[in-house]
Amino acid sequence: MTTTSPEAQRYADPRVALDVTSDSVDLLLRHRSVRRFRPDAVADAQLRTIVAAAQSAPTSSNLQPWSVVAVRDPERKARLAHLAADQRFVAENGLLLIWVADLGRARRLACRHGTDLAAADYLETTLIAFIDTALAAQNAVVAAESLGLGTVFVGAIRDHPKQVAAELALPPHTVAAFGLALGVPDPDAPAGIKPRLPQQAVLHHEQYDAVTADAELPAYDRRLAAYRASYGLSGDWTTRVLARLRGPESMAGRHLLREVLQRRGLPSR
Amino acid sequence: MTTTSPEAQRYADPRVALDVTSDSVDLLLRHRSVRRFRPDAVADAQLRTIVAAAQSAPTSSNLQPWSVVAVRDPERKARLAHLAADQRFVAENGLLLIWVADLGRARRLACRHGTDLAAADYLETTLIAFIDTALAAQNAVVAAESLGLGTVFVGAIRDHPKQVAAELALPPHTVAAFGLALGVPDPDAPAGIKPRLPQQAVLHHEQYDAVTADAELPAYDRRLAAYRASYGLSGDWTTRVLARLRGPESMAGRHLLREVLQRRGLPSR
Repeated sequence: MTTTSPEAQRYADPRVALDVTSDSVDLLLRHRSVRRFRPDAVADAQLRTIVAAAQSAPTSSNLQPWSVVAVRDPERKARLAHLAADQRFVAENGLLLIWVADLGRARRLACRHGTDLAAADYLETTLIAFIDTALAAQNAVVAAESLGLGTVFVGAIRDHPKQVAAELALPPHTVAAFGLALGVPDPDAPAGIKPRLPQQAVLHHEQYDAVTADAELPAYDRRLAAYRASYGLSGDWTTRVLARLRGPESMAGRHLLREVLQRRGLPSR
Repeated sequence: MTTTSPEAQRYADPRVALDVTSDSVDLLLRHRSVRRFRPDAVADAQLRTIVAAAQSAPTSSNLQPWSVVAVRDPERKARLAHLAADQRFVAENGLLLIWVADLGRARRLACRHGTDLAAADYLETTLIAFIDTALAAQNAVVAAESLGLGTVFVGAIRDHPKQVAAELALPPHTVAAFGLALGVPDPDAPAGIKPRLPQQAVLHHEQYDAVTADAELPAYDRRLAAYRASYGLSGDWTTRVLARLRGPESMAGRHLLREVLQRRGLPSR
């Protein structure tokens, strides 16, 4: 394997070179999704540090509208893995965190104080809960990786939100937003750095310029196809995006999310 | 001022001590929202590094459903500041980034290929776009802070989404999710580390336990009230959360977000 900078790997383009960096940037650039872990448990001391990092992320109006459930029980992990597309890494990891978009804490406060909380009926507030949960969880990823752990998000935790809520005893006005599996990466199954879109495809100056941005997509299709081919997989980016978003049949039940959120007390008015 | 660990500051509790840390964790724990900047511009080389870090964040099925618009033009910044609750730091900073939840790129691909993209009609897909935008933007925050910059998110960019879209020439199926002001922190106006909820209020083990978690809230109310008092501000956490979420009148127009998203081509089916 050739020695290349993390940014050249990130863009699968040897011409990319960043002029400014830091140790933390280097850590961020080297992120990869780890789906195979050694059996070692993530220690409670590591968990406390990871959650403190998560809580240090920005949050809209200091609302802190999220919670996290740490799952260690192997049987519970196995049941959650079954609900999340039977993905092995949901069961086999050093720690499973379920990140919860949580407007329940504020709703309970309002109930105890006998006041209205009508803003929580609106999609805007539900979005804030998901955004702030994501900001916190990404800090958790960075913290975990800085401690030598590997991570992977589990969006499939939204495939069966009602059953996941029952498994975790989630109260009203809360929903599992996504999972995060953590652990010591299995050295026998190293994960690759997934190439991303050229920066010119996502970064605009002053105004959005779709023509210039989209002109980068064919080159990216070739790079991603080559990366996938190196793992014995076929398909370029365009093909995979179009397949993933084709229609409700490609959504593993998540086309029902709006109704599920409504029933869980997170309406989208 | 006494010398305290970042974790003791983060929780406004001198008893809190983490047993495990790293340089990156230390950076995360020391995060604060910076709203006063020196006039120095954020260099293009720094911007490229920040965006590369953002692109290195996880993204659901590698969809990469976001874009970012870098705004340097002082007049455009001033107009955006006016649209975002007239907040001074939206105009006066070293760089303004507008993070865009972007399903337009995939929609344009589908259009060019003559295929359906019906999954993008569902709230689930809009949520993915906002979640992935947030994951990326949080990496940008971490990268920027590691380069010595200060940052603050601007949720008020959602107060007037239609006008913001016009200002940035945003195409259909995209919406400004939030802004991020960056710059060299003004040493004459240092920002504080905002105390967060006790970890026991947000971290659950195996199942959600609302009684144990909510028992922490009175102590937090006292700590946050003391922190605010040190800045000459009144109010505890409970009071502020209940005021912020009272009803549509407390939402600065954002109670209309669902209709706005629909009109911008991000429906919530």
